[in-house]
Amino acid sequence: MILFQCDYNEGAHEKILERLIQTNMEQTDGYGMDPYCASAARKIKERCQVPEADVHFLVGGTQTNVTVISAILKPWQGVISASSGHIHVHETGAVEACGHKVLAIPSEDGKITGAQVEALYQGHIHDESAEHTVQPGMVYISNPTELGTIYSLAELTDLSQACRRNGLILFMDGARLGYGLTAKGNDLTFESIAKLCDVFYIGGTKVGALFGEAVVITNPSIQKDFRYMIKQKGGMLAKGRLLGIQFDTLFTDDLYLTIAAQANCLADHLREAFAEAGYPFLIETTTNQIFVIMPDDQLAELKKNYGFCYQQRMDETHSAVRFCTSWATKSENVTKLIEDVCNLKA
Amino acid sequence: MILFQCDYNEGAHEKILERLIQTNMEQTDGYGMDPYCASAARKIKERCQVPEADVHFLVGGTQTNVTVISAILKPWQGVISASSGHIHVHETGAVEACGHKVLAIPSEDGKITGAQVEALYQGHIHDESAEHTVQPGMVYISNPTELGTIYSLAELTDLSQACRRNGLILFMDGARLGYGLTAKGNDLTFESIAKLCDVFYIGGTKVGALFGEAVVITNPSIQKDFRYMIKQKGGMLAKGRLLGIQFDTLFTDDLYLTIAAQANCLADHLREAFAEAGYPFLIETTTNQIFVIMPDDQLAELKKNYGFCYQQRMDETHSAVRFCTSWATKSENVTKLIEDVCNLKA
Amino acid sequence: MILFQCDYNEGAHEKILERLIQTNMEQTDGYGMDPYCASAARKIKERCQVPEADVHFLVGGTQTNVTVISAILKPWQGVISASSGHIHVHETGAVEACGHKVLAIPSEDGKITGAQVEALYQGHIHDESAEHTVQPGMVYISNPTELGTIYSLAELTDLSQACRRNGLILFMDGARLGYGLTAKGNDLTFESIAKLCDVFYIGGTKVGALFGEAVVITNPSIQKDFRYMIKQKGGMLAKGRLLGIQFDTLFTDDLYLTIAAQANCLADHLREAFAEAGYPFLIETTTNQIFVIMPDDQLAELKKNYGFCYQQRMDETHSAVRFCTSWATKSENVTKLIEDVCNLKA
Amino acid sequence: MILFQCDYNEGAHEKILERLIQTNMEQTDGYGMDPYCASAARKIKERCQVPEADVHFLVGGTQTNVTVISAILKPWQGVISASSGHIHVHETGAVEACGHKVLAIPSEDGKITGAQVEALYQGHIHDESAEHTVQPGMVYISNPTELGTIYSLAELTDLSQACRRNGLILFMDGARLGYGLTAKGNDLTFESIAKLCDVFYIGGTKVGALFGEAVVITNPSIQKDFRYMIKQKGGMLAKGRLLGIQFDTLFTDDLYLTIAAQANCLADHLREAFAEAGYPFLIETTTNQIFVIMPDDQLAELKKNYGFCYQQRMDETHSAVRFCTSWATKSENVTKLIEDVCNLKA
Repeated sequence: MILFQCDYNEGAHEKILERLIQTNMEQTDGYGMDPYCASAARKIKERCQVPEADVHFLVGGTQTNVTVISAILKPWQGVISASSGHIHVHETGAVEACGHKVLAIPSEDGKITGAQVEALYQGHIHDESAEHTVQPGMVYISNPTELGTIYSLAELTDLSQACRRNGLILFMDGARLGYGLTAKGNDLTFESIAKLCDVFYIGGTKVGALFGEAVVITNPSIQKDFRYMIKQKGGMLAKGRLLGIQFDTLFTDDLYLTIAAQANCLADHLREAFAEAGYPFLIETTTNQIFVIMPDDQLAELKKNYGFCYQQRMDETHSAVRFCTSWATKSENVTKLIEDVCNLKA
Repeated sequence: MILFQCDYNEGAHEKILERLIQTNMEQTDGYGMDPYCASAARKIKERCQVPEADVHFLVGGTQTNVTVISAILKPWQGVISASSGHIHVHETGAVEACGHKVLAIPSEDGKITGAQVEALYQGHIHDESAEHTVQPGMVYISNPTELGTIYSLAELTDLSQACRRNGLILFMDGARLGYGLTAKGNDLTFESIAKLCDVFYIGGTKVGALFGEAVVITNPSIQKDFRYMIKQKGGMLAKGRLLGIQFDTLFTDDLYLTIAAQANCLADHLREAFAEAGYPFLIETTTNQIFVIMPDDQLAELKKNYGFCYQQRMDETHSAVRFCTSWATKSENVTKLIEDVCNLKA
Repeated sequence: MILFQCDYNEGAHEKILERLIQTNMEQTDGYGMDPYCASAARKIKERCQVPEADVHFLVGGTQTNVTVISAILKPWQGVISASSGHIHVHETGAVEACGHKVLAIPSEDGKITGAQVEALYQGHIHDESAEHTVQPGMVYISNPTELGTIYSLAELTDLSQACRRNGLILFMDGARLGYGLTAKGNDLTFESIAKLCDVFYIGGTKVGALFGEAVVITNPSIQKDFRYMIKQKGGMLAKGRLLGIQFDTLFTDDLYLTIAAQANCLADHLREAFAEAGYPFLIETTTNQIFVIMPDDQLAELKKNYGFCYQQRMDETHSAVRFCTSWATKSENVTKLIEDVCNLKA
Repeated sequence: MILFQCDYNEGAHEKILERLIQTNMEQTDGYGMDPYCASAARKIKERCQVPEADVHFLVGGTQTNVTVISAILKPWQGVISASSGHIHVHETGAVEACGHKVLAIPSEDGKITGAQVEALYQGHIHDESAEHTVQPGMVYISNPTELGTIYSLAELTDLSQACRRNGLILFMDGARLGYGLTAKGNDLTFESIAKLCDVFYIGGTKVGALFGEAVVITNPSIQKDFRYMIKQKGGMLAKGRLLGIQFDTLFTDDLYLTIAAQANCLADHLREAFAEAGYPFLIETTTNQIFVIMPDDQLAELKKNYGFCYQQRMDETHSAVRFCTSWATKSENVTKLIEDVCNLKA
């Protein structure tokens, strides 16, 4: 079986493993107070050109989303999200479990716009009985989105301005950020994201690390006491250096973007193969996630040798499924899949 | 500097690292649905002789405590704990953040008794306005405790009976369980703990793993839907196999207890050295934590070369501090510390 | 100014005031342990023919919804509601503040169907990664709905069966129950509601009381310890007898339904007047809420003398507004409004 | 039976009932946006000489405590309270249910001192791993306390200064404030409390109202958006004017303090009678709560004709019990009890 079902089917990039082995018996302070975390934070701040930012390392995405969101919101505030947002549909109500409503905005492509945010917020504050409804307090976006799409610089600027005009915090979930920043047509950078967002995280779990997400808080008004929240929400890793070592490695010689670019390259090959074979896509993407629509019988055939993700039913005989590449995807596996796809008839 | 300040200053046991390296590029399903987690769970159930138990793997202790406690309690219930319990003093209110009061019972040695639990529960239900106070729903104990002490089989049996008589769930936090089970004078076993507790966890982070805690739920009435809670509380590791691989290794050839016994052995040497040098202890322990009382000036001297933990002030010139050994402690470091202690005058 | 904007613009029915005055200086136990609460509960259980039910009295609707919902759900469960449901849009995230997601189902008329509930629940449990999403645990409906519509016996039976097939608790918010049970075309009764729902409440605030909602829990599996939850959620009134006295009065000689029927009767007159004057309705209702669509300039004219509620914009020059009657509405005020409506031209 | 068990055994002061009757069929806006609430707020601000304060009206004490505390604290903060504080022992964990730990300070007389608060806060911030423990964010006191004692001006000033030095919000629960301000030896006033506290509430339920507590927020930094919190926590009464009318009446011609003074006067008589009869007190009080120690057999005798509250066992044959007077206590009932007490032998 060859798995394309997600970008966390393997372990870690070899350079990370090497560093973990080298440092294994060193003694360091716990809870992220070690030199590796300090070094990794420094490198990330330099890379994003935000020397005044705070950088924290957490273990996983749901934990990170919950910690950031619940640290920032007032108890009567909610977080705006695309209806397809991870926090709205795939975190078992983790945000609500911390007391906050997710204010879902309809979205076809996983993205939301400044105009949507503006309309929702203005609608709220002009409601005569505003206090009977949840006050929007921040905006959550993922980039790339859960549907593999990415925000352009213009779109993110627009969203950022809408947030700042209305006093809303803008938070970007970058679980797959590497795949976004190295996608064809992308014009965002670490620097522009750091400028336009109040807080964002750089995903390690899906881009070369065993696990780990680096939260970058650029807005000084939300930096205070964040470590209390990490501890309370269960995200303060005893051997915190494991996170520092991994991110220090990923941010040495731009390893993070290099390996993400490779994954995108393989995804591009695969995408072209599907297109040439005549299969339509559920949505156009340029990142490592491909949502292709295929006949159910052909999917059943493919399933004998490949792992992929069921996305949704399209009609009685067709479904959309997701194929993912990652930093760990072997080129020969993509080649093999392409051959098999070519042998099928769309 | 030689660190004795905690049992998570180093990485992982070499056998664990080896397994992680060997398996690194294997492809497996995420979220704990891989063969390694299955194998580790099987081994733990066999070791504890509880074939019907559920075993889940989480990343850290606070996360585990919160997930277990909030999965079990009704919203109006609280959890009984020693006043020194980790959940009461060192988790930034994580249990309260999930809505539950910690009902603290005074304790000198970190342990609580069946009689205390019985009295608290009976006092509650016989209160005319019981519903104005938090209903005790479960009992949390740590073994070894935060003060390094351990429960005897008689004590745990007593506590278990008090819980069962009163319909209370008994939960053991075994963050340092290995050091308890291999301590001098211990008469508990995995089997007896599994029989007497409704749920407990076997700590990996402090006993040889990079990270990881194995939750064993023996009471079938609290097994249902636990994975929802893991996900919601941010504890469902994407590359869940990392936990499976580690616990599979720790439960092969009893590695877990073997390395814990070594740490205890070194702690025994160190303890004897302190005793022979005439230093009193804050509390008598037989596990890997030593709480010794020393003059502040001597502590200042020791601090130049050794890391240890400040525990509490005893009088104007003396303090209690904690020295920890672990699976990773080097015997030569203990020897060196013993020499230095002998050179001081108590 | 004559107010038609809601059904809580006045105080209480005169019979209630009289009873409050008569009993004012009597001494009784607090917190609902008085003879008046006991008597009221008995009368309600008789009226609903559910001798084994538990009846509790709370002060207001949001409080009641939150107390019931959070008492019943497991932490990883959510509550299904129409997208227009009060708990979803008008309680400032009170349910989420207790940790639970509201799973909103699209609805045009404020109602949801058994088929919708079935589809949502089956979709959840057949999801391969169900534990990554909120588990539906109960269904919330309001009757009459926020849009003034009512469930038929067939519809409620259908919904009840869907719930029972899927292990979901069915909860009816009856803030305006009186107006539903006495509406033209209604075929539900206290008895049928008690049979088909697991828990429901009979609204007093909007039907003759100063304040107060009577929760009836018919499903024995959710009766235990409910008073703890009332206290914790701030709903246990010190002078609980005030609630008992009011509901005892409302359930003497069917006062509750009698006064509701009067309000509906006045609403019918008003509705006919709007219809005859040629105004369309946002939605067809037979209860005390009328949602009529009028030109903005005519609304501005009416606003000089009447209070009513803005509902939504229909187009550039028309809006839908809500007129409410209640147990306290004076017939002469309705007559006056009808005259003014007739003088306008639709 | 004559009840002395609490100060909420009767209804409301006759002047309040009269006003409720007079205004019953008036039409007003809901949710506290009516002229009566505005007038009552104005009178309270004048009485306290805090024109810039915000005044809100809630229904009951637990609700008020929870709403105030959870509106102010950050998620990682807790509230300091005497170990006997109402929020710690008698609210079914309502504060914890909103996510916050109650940081209990030992207290013999129900009061806490500035020095205690200072020590706790300084201990926290100087802890090397402060973020592993709950951050103190505010101080909760009750005045009179649950034990009937009162703070002196010097004590409250001391506490206020400790809070301000350490950035802690000071919140006074004034459920029985009237009985405190009119007690013998009291030197606090509405004005001094308003100056020294950041937020406090004036209890109506126990001092003449059917129900109701008036929250006065003097610190502008915690005033914003408080109505959202009232709504979310279920405290926004639909017919909010009921609260306005009651407090407007209580703050007309100082009715609030006048009726409280009468209750204290009767309590003084009763207290003297106990003292003269030779009974010791659990604690010395000057307010409407008397904690007297009596032989169990005499208590059994008294219980045939009087209601009072069991407080605690003193020894095998003696218990402490509580007798309360209130604004509604009839002087002849006190006389009768005094006679019966005199006939017993201490």
